[in-house]
Amino acid sequence: MLLTLSDRAPAAPQSSPARKRDAERTRKALLASGLREFAHNGFMGARLDKIAAGAKCNIRMLYHYFGGKKGLYLAVLEAAYADLRHKESLIEIDLAKPLEGILELTRFTVLYFQNNPLFEGLLRAENMMQGKFVAQLPPVPRGGTTLKSLIGNLIHSGQAQGIFRADLDPVQVYVTITALSRFHLANAYSMSAVLDTDLRDPHWRADRLRHSLEVISAYVRA
Amino acid sequence: MLLTLSDRAPAAPQSSPARKRDAERTRKALLASGLREFAHNGFMGARLDKIAAGAKCNIRMLYHYFGGKKGLYLAVLEAAYADLRHKESLIEIDLAKPLEGILELTRFTVLYFQNNPLFEGLLRAENMMQGKFVAQLPPVPRGGTTLKSLIGNLIHSGQAQGIFRADLDPVQVYVTITALSRFHLANAYSMSAVLDTDLRDPHWRADRLRHSLEVISAYVRA
Repeated sequence: MLLTLSDRAPAAPQSSPARKRDAERTRKALLASGLREFAHNGFMGARLDKIAAGAKCNIRMLYHYFGGKKGLYLAVLEAAYADLRHKESLIEIDLAKPLEGILELTRFTVLYFQNNPLFEGLLRAENMMQGKFVAQLPPVPRGGTTLKSLIGNLIHSGQAQGIFRADLDPVQVYVTITALSRFHLANAYSMSAVLDTDLRDPHWRADRLRHSLEVISAYVRA
Repeated sequence: MLLTLSDRAPAAPQSSPARKRDAERTRKALLASGLREFAHNGFMGARLDKIAAGAKCNIRMLYHYFGGKKGLYLAVLEAAYADLRHKESLIEIDLAKPLEGILELTRFTVLYFQNNPLFEGLLRAENMMQGKFVAQLPPVPRGGTTLKSLIGNLIHSGQAQGIFRADLDPVQVYVTITALSRFHLANAYSMSAVLDTDLRDPHWRADRLRHSLEVISAYVRA
């Protein structure tokens, strides 16, 4: 996961290019280490000394760059959403081919979350806290406004071509795409025990991607 | 949620019927209070003094009946699964009507989790611990063996009647039914912020049930 710099941190003092590079490296290392610790242990359970150790830096640097646990957590959450929304925006979608477009978005979402399991852990922590911090993020990059209008445009195109059903709602469609992408990751352990099937097995996950594409395809088509 | 008695607890000493009723009441109160505390704060974050206070009893009673935090957590998890599997077994399903059967199971699962939000919190805690405890539960009631064969039988019936598609897998179908039932509950806060839509609103949830039934119906049909 690309960890972008947050614009919330205090500006670094005027310094040489070499010192600026070091500062940027330290901030990125703290974001990456913070993501791991928050994803595994939640906000309350996360320990700042472990995050600093994971970033190979002093805990005072963490306070210097992020002001403390809350500031670092917000920066980690913002960087995670920024990476998702940025990569999502790079999907090549042709509005003239709406079914292919919806399936490309589904394939991207399934694979993105599969390849970024720490984001799932972070979202688990965030929902356990009733979304206290996600509501504080700026609308961009958190928000799905662009995404909702992309899905809305694909739906209109498919309906105009007569290949999509008439009653499609962009929000319900996106919630279903993410449900198909993330539920089996978030619940891999409990569902594997209940169903006596290893949901973490790469073959099962490959089947899951095929299944998810078929579910979306069957649902949106007229 | 019905909290059944665990057979893991030490047997109560021989005593009068009145004393037995009191003991049973205390155990049920501890299970209910433990479910609330574990669902909200996870296993590590849960506090035994709060659980005892919530059950209006002494913390020594908690140790007496469940042996400690781990024993209580296991009993809570087992009781939660037992209630789900028991209520699921009461759904009236006619194998001669496979589409109706699959949709009844979907409707039950959506509404069951909507009406039992603490179970979702418990499963979040359990998966955060990588399913350490769910693997220790007895296969019944945890297991979905009966459920898998029910779905398998519905699939065979639908295929024999020529109304279901040929490539249906009971495990993938059930994971999708639960994903459609639970994902929007587990991620209500983050998804509401991202999509600027209140996923906790009763009208949205009623739409979600309709949408989920349509997704399953569109997918399984030939």
